[in-house]
Amino acid sequence: MADIGGELLWPGDGRADDVFTDASFLAAMVRFEQAWLDGLAAAGLAPGSVALVAPALADIAADAESGGNPVIPLVKELRKQSVDVHRGLTSQDVVDTALVLCVRDALDRVLADGERAARTLGRLARAHRATVMAGRTLTQLAVPITFGLKAATWLAGLTDAIVELRRAREELPIQIGGAAGTLAAVVELARDNDDPVGTAAALARDVAHRLDLQGGTPWHTRRTPLTAAADALVAVSDAWGHMAGDIALLSRSEIGELREGAGGGSSTMPGKANPVLSILLRRHALAAPSLAATLHVAAATYVDERPDGGWHAEWDTLRLLARRSVVAASQAADLVAGLVVDTAAMAERVASDARTLTAEQRSIAGSAAEDPAAYLGATDLVIDNIFERAARVWSNL
Amino acid sequence: MADIGGELLWPGDGRADDVFTDASFLAAMVRFEQAWLDGLAAAGLAPGSVALVAPALADIAADAESGGNPVIPLVKELRKQSVDVHRGLTSQDVVDTALVLCVRDALDRVLADGERAARTLGRLARAHRATVMAGRTLTQLAVPITFGLKAATWLAGLTDAIVELRRAREELPIQIGGAAGTLAAVVELARDNDDPVGTAAALARDVAHRLDLQGGTPWHTRRTPLTAAADALVAVSDAWGHMAGDIALLSRSEIGELREGAGGGSSTMPGKANPVLSILLRRHALAAPSLAATLHVAAATYVDERPDGGWHAEWDTLRLLARRSVVAASQAADLVAGLVVDTAAMAERVASDARTLTAEQRSIAGSAAEDPAAYLGATDLVIDNIFERAARVWSNL
Amino acid sequence: MADIGGELLWPGDGRADDVFTDASFLAAMVRFEQAWLDGLAAAGLAPGSVALVAPALADIAADAESGGNPVIPLVKELRKQSVDVHRGLTSQDVVDTALVLCVRDALDRVLADGERAARTLGRLARAHRATVMAGRTLTQLAVPITFGLKAATWLAGLTDAIVELRRAREELPIQIGGAAGTLAAVVELARDNDDPVGTAAALARDVAHRLDLQGGTPWHTRRTPLTAAADALVAVSDAWGHMAGDIALLSRSEIGELREGAGGGSSTMPGKANPVLSILLRRHALAAPSLAATLHVAAATYVDERPDGGWHAEWDTLRLLARRSVVAASQAADLVAGLVVDTAAMAERVASDARTLTAEQRSIAGSAAEDPAAYLGATDLVIDNIFERAARVWSNL
Amino acid sequence: MADIGGELLWPGDGRADDVFTDASFLAAMVRFEQAWLDGLAAAGLAPGSVALVAPALADIAADAESGGNPVIPLVKELRKQSVDVHRGLTSQDVVDTALVLCVRDALDRVLADGERAARTLGRLARAHRATVMAGRTLTQLAVPITFGLKAATWLAGLTDAIVELRRAREELPIQIGGAAGTLAAVVELARDNDDPVGTAAALARDVAHRLDLQGGTPWHTRRTPLTAAADALVAVSDAWGHMAGDIALLSRSEIGELREGAGGGSSTMPGKANPVLSILLRRHALAAPSLAATLHVAAATYVDERPDGGWHAEWDTLRLLARRSVVAASQAADLVAGLVVDTAAMAERVASDARTLTAEQRSIAGSAAEDPAAYLGATDLVIDNIFERAARVWSNL
Repeated sequence: MADIGGELLWPGDGRADDVFTDASFLAAMVRFEQAWLDGLAAAGLAPGSVALVAPALADIAADAESGGNPVIPLVKELRKQSVDVHRGLTSQDVVDTALVLCVRDALDRVLADGERAARTLGRLARAHRATVMAGRTLTQLAVPITFGLKAATWLAGLTDAIVELRRAREELPIQIGGAAGTLAAVVELARDNDDPVGTAAALARDVAHRLDLQGGTPWHTRRTPLTAAADALVAVSDAWGHMAGDIALLSRSEIGELREGAGGGSSTMPGKANPVLSILLRRHALAAPSLAATLHVAAATYVDERPDGGWHAEWDTLRLLARRSVVAASQAADLVAGLVVDTAAMAERVASDARTLTAEQRSIAGSAAEDPAAYLGATDLVIDNIFERAARVWSNL
Repeated sequence: MADIGGELLWPGDGRADDVFTDASFLAAMVRFEQAWLDGLAAAGLAPGSVALVAPALADIAADAESGGNPVIPLVKELRKQSVDVHRGLTSQDVVDTALVLCVRDALDRVLADGERAARTLGRLARAHRATVMAGRTLTQLAVPITFGLKAATWLAGLTDAIVELRRAREELPIQIGGAAGTLAAVVELARDNDDPVGTAAALARDVAHRLDLQGGTPWHTRRTPLTAAADALVAVSDAWGHMAGDIALLSRSEIGELREGAGGGSSTMPGKANPVLSILLRRHALAAPSLAATLHVAAATYVDERPDGGWHAEWDTLRLLARRSVVAASQAADLVAGLVVDTAAMAERVASDARTLTAEQRSIAGSAAEDPAAYLGATDLVIDNIFERAARVWSNL
Repeated sequence: MADIGGELLWPGDGRADDVFTDASFLAAMVRFEQAWLDGLAAAGLAPGSVALVAPALADIAADAESGGNPVIPLVKELRKQSVDVHRGLTSQDVVDTALVLCVRDALDRVLADGERAARTLGRLARAHRATVMAGRTLTQLAVPITFGLKAATWLAGLTDAIVELRRAREELPIQIGGAAGTLAAVVELARDNDDPVGTAAALARDVAHRLDLQGGTPWHTRRTPLTAAADALVAVSDAWGHMAGDIALLSRSEIGELREGAGGGSSTMPGKANPVLSILLRRHALAAPSLAATLHVAAATYVDERPDGGWHAEWDTLRLLARRSVVAASQAADLVAGLVVDTAAMAERVASDARTLTAEQRSIAGSAAEDPAAYLGATDLVIDNIFERAARVWSNL
Repeated sequence: MADIGGELLWPGDGRADDVFTDASFLAAMVRFEQAWLDGLAAAGLAPGSVALVAPALADIAADAESGGNPVIPLVKELRKQSVDVHRGLTSQDVVDTALVLCVRDALDRVLADGERAARTLGRLARAHRATVMAGRTLTQLAVPITFGLKAATWLAGLTDAIVELRRAREELPIQIGGAAGTLAAVVELARDNDDPVGTAAALARDVAHRLDLQGGTPWHTRRTPLTAAADALVAVSDAWGHMAGDIALLSRSEIGELREGAGGGSSTMPGKANPVLSILLRRHALAAPSLAATLHVAAATYVDERPDGGWHAEWDTLRLLARRSVVAASQAADLVAGLVVDTAAMAERVASDARTLTAEQRSIAGSAAEDPAAYLGATDLVIDNIFERAARVWSNL
């Protein structure tokens, strides 16, 4: 169990182990201070660097409230190791860059498990390209589809979301701006150089490079890097919600066309197999949009060169969204990997409701058509088109 | 630092110490299973009771996901202590009642700190009944008010919210319904009694009494007890947000009419005193509404006798809202306790802008009125009315 | 079709006809200005009253933006009819009271249709007290219930929400405070009276009485009257969402235990009957929580004596929530009135899955029990308890 | 005033005139049916086309509810003009494509006004590159900035959002999939062709081309095209919220460094000039995130080949978000065009608080520095970098 707790109230939380925990956030802050100290030394703005040791979490935590953020106690501890730590920075530089580093870890996990799920969905779509099943609209049997189309449609939604997520990941920036986004303090540190501003800018680029983050202008009051990541994570959660909702429905006792590989049991009802992973994914999908909304409300209420609440509202909200997204991506990949497709149940439904499923065809053709397998339209082409796009996003699909 | 972590990303989290942590939730589940076991024994439906020992958190956490909730591993562990544990119950009974117990602890903390804040606000309103200050509307100076009126208005908002919170607290119910809200399992346990249904109902009442909760009908799919508590917590957070927003504004360097007792410092700007508690309260107030929205979305998507995601979305959402509410109430009470009212700054503003503040009066009176202190209207009466209502809610105000 | 439009994008909108349209809001503002003018005259603060004629909507609309609200152009027009119109008031008094009047109309409609639905649910619960059907949890068949219990549970959720709604309705207050909640302008008007403050207070009470609203203290920056009404409307929408979700599920082709009286057709699939009202109710239930969240975010960001955005964000949000609630209540009452209960389908399911539905009983009893009708536990008692509470809320249930 | 109403409760609504009204939506549906009919005829699947005349809005509105959407009554009316209307389509094809057409109109307006605002911001940033003003963090004076930097930072946020918005606009797809996304009906229409599937696919491409929309695969249950547009609109509203919040603050009576060109007046306080456009922008920014959250909740609850509520929840939510975005973009462009920068007030503040604004510099330099203009760090470089990026997004900046 990760130190963040949560496994009882958010089952599956442990899948995210140390992603974006308090401890990881502390480590990320130290990592940034280290990169900065190394950068200062390399630029000749500090006499040298030392290997910083992260202080105890409890020590930082105890003092995080008095200044409103954990950087003040952190710097106090780290300056015992080197007096040059944090010179030229502001608290927001440290918190924001550490948030970005933690978000990036989360995004990488989501991308990896997203790819795992995508490959399985690709396999399912291929394997069941010809598996006819009932299409349903507005809760009622409608026209036939194939399970391959359904799996491909899930894949298409995931692909859209992953494209968005990758873009947000590639654009994640370092935050270096000093108190008001002017880099005044670091320029001041370099005031004896020939080109203090150039030195400061080069230092910022160097430190971004050390952390493999985008450089660019300070974003102290422009929160698009965070909201774009959040929106992308919600797009992914939408994709899981859609897929999990379908699976939960098709797993209903009265339908039984799908089944989770390892359904959850009941303490009192022997033999019950609940679609647990689908349910837990739906849980995330229902809760994620509100978290992104909070990040947008926060962004929309930024004022001055650092706002009076919006900034602070982001941190834990982002942690929740990112961490739960890691859990969900792992659960989703497992879910599709273990998914049991009951082709016999699908076929049985198609056979028993063939007249209903072909009613539209008859109304068009004016004929006696009653074979759902003969009313699949462009299903294969749609699947092909989805694959074509997905193949541009994922290799070895 | 509580086991829940969070102090770094939600500064002040430690104020809530063990309220609604994973460990507390585990303890609450065990407490309910204990009460139930005691009730079974007292009703003659179990041979006797034993004092249950809570299993290790890690053991429960590790298995919480496979069944979708922590009750299955918990019961497995507890049945090693007594085979009669959990007989007649369903997982939802345990989770829901434990949620309620944890929420109640949180509500009690909010109520206590709310009362602490209310008394301070009452004192401020009385002390500054005659402290004239500028009223401001739509960011511009408007007509004069008194700081006593402002403090009383904060109190009035808090009073409304606390009334709602107390009502939600008093109505918190136990959950005992079995798999589908019919109490079938416990009636079955009592099948050899003369009146199995009466026995089951009496047992449910008895266990509710043991936990000091309301009895009543199962609410497996009717989530008003939770949403009412959540809405009330958001009403309180609105009250804090309003108060904190005012304090943050009036603390601005250019206004300086209020000041937090212990402002937060800056690592690089000596002498800076930020209104940290106000900022942290605003943080909560910006984030809380979305959490309640999630609980409502969950409630609105309940289906069957237990839903496929809505239930699971509630747990951690409720924890967050409740725990952060405890933190905020404590911060708010501290904030008002330490609030420094700069009456000189208020008076200076009133004097320097007297013409502006009395422009409305002149437009009505057609006179040369220029004394803001003579244009306070029914301010005293409004304060009296607020106190009259508040006195019905709090004693010793 | 109401002037507000919306019938195409929110089918059923016409059910709310003139509730909380722009025209109704204008009428409500005029109504308040009339009551105030009458009050002024009665109090001797104006030479007399006249019967005000509402200006054309288009004239007010055209100028609503320049001052940020519609009161400035309204007053300009009304003062052509009497120069004493609006004397002593501020824009917020007019907007807020008009909002309250429009909300009250909406609430009354929701309460009336809520009662209509409650009576039908009561009838259904009584009629189907013994109609055994499958209970389902987490998408899977679980233990037996009766359809009477299900209908009673819907009723119980509705009852909770209606209690909350009635409370919010009874507490709806007039807004009279002047620019900063001090009633300074009206006290100024009465400055030649013996007791100007007493005169102002009496006038405020009198006008509240004329509009049948609560008096009390100004709530310019304390938005609990609006958020309480909004939260209650969301509680009602949760109740509809839960009921509609159940009906939509039980109407699925593969289940068919319920059916809407007049299902929606399809342009291409003859014979298809979609559960349209259930779907439209779920639509509302999914969207309503976010609207209430906006009202809370607005309330939480109130500052000064009138805020810089929060107030303005409330108006249309409240209109949407209130109006959609009226539509939903009407649809819900129609839905249950027309609901077709297919008891044969229920019985067939129970018979075919009797072993599954009694698995829990066997695991407790260790017996060969296989009759779902004999495993209903305290179902009747639960129904009785729900009725007992509901009877305290509604007469002639 | 547009037929949609709303001007009173959402002042400024008229700026969006006929964008995304019920009437425009009806026109968009007819436009799609026309393009489809033309396409059918061109493909030889209908004997010919006719110029369709839109039915009366009221006729469609009256019947929109019974089938759950306005397409059924629309098709009934249009088929009086040509029996081939709508052949091969499903309601969702029509509603979704019409939504996309209406959204596109809204996006184009936002893009145009966004560009107008961007140019003004560019001009302000250039004009005030050297206008030193106080930087403020956490409500307190911090270090100096220039107003040019502030304007450039607003521009940077807007640029980020517009990039996202353009991407969403370019990707807006037509919806053609038939009842379950298989194009079965249109393939059936083409069954006598050599290549029915190829014919259907070519027809879909042709109709997309006629409407200048992307083709691609059906997105009946994959709602990323809509959520991406919504997220981008919220990113824009965040940018306006940030800018408007700054302007409202800097317009406060006690600061007075900015002023709206035409402030809003008061009915009773002569001389009051409220930052009305800023306030109305903040209103939108507070409310927009919740609307996008609703769209995501809807997307996340899609099931089957058409869901039971999620789809219907999108329509009016999207209208609101799109329409309000059009209003806000217009207001924002006007706001910056009229913005009055009081450089004297800025200079006065800088002079009077020079010691505070240079405290950080002294703490670094250990010197007697007291000239804020000498502590601007890399401000010019940051502005240059913002311009460099913005110039890639907008020409003639």
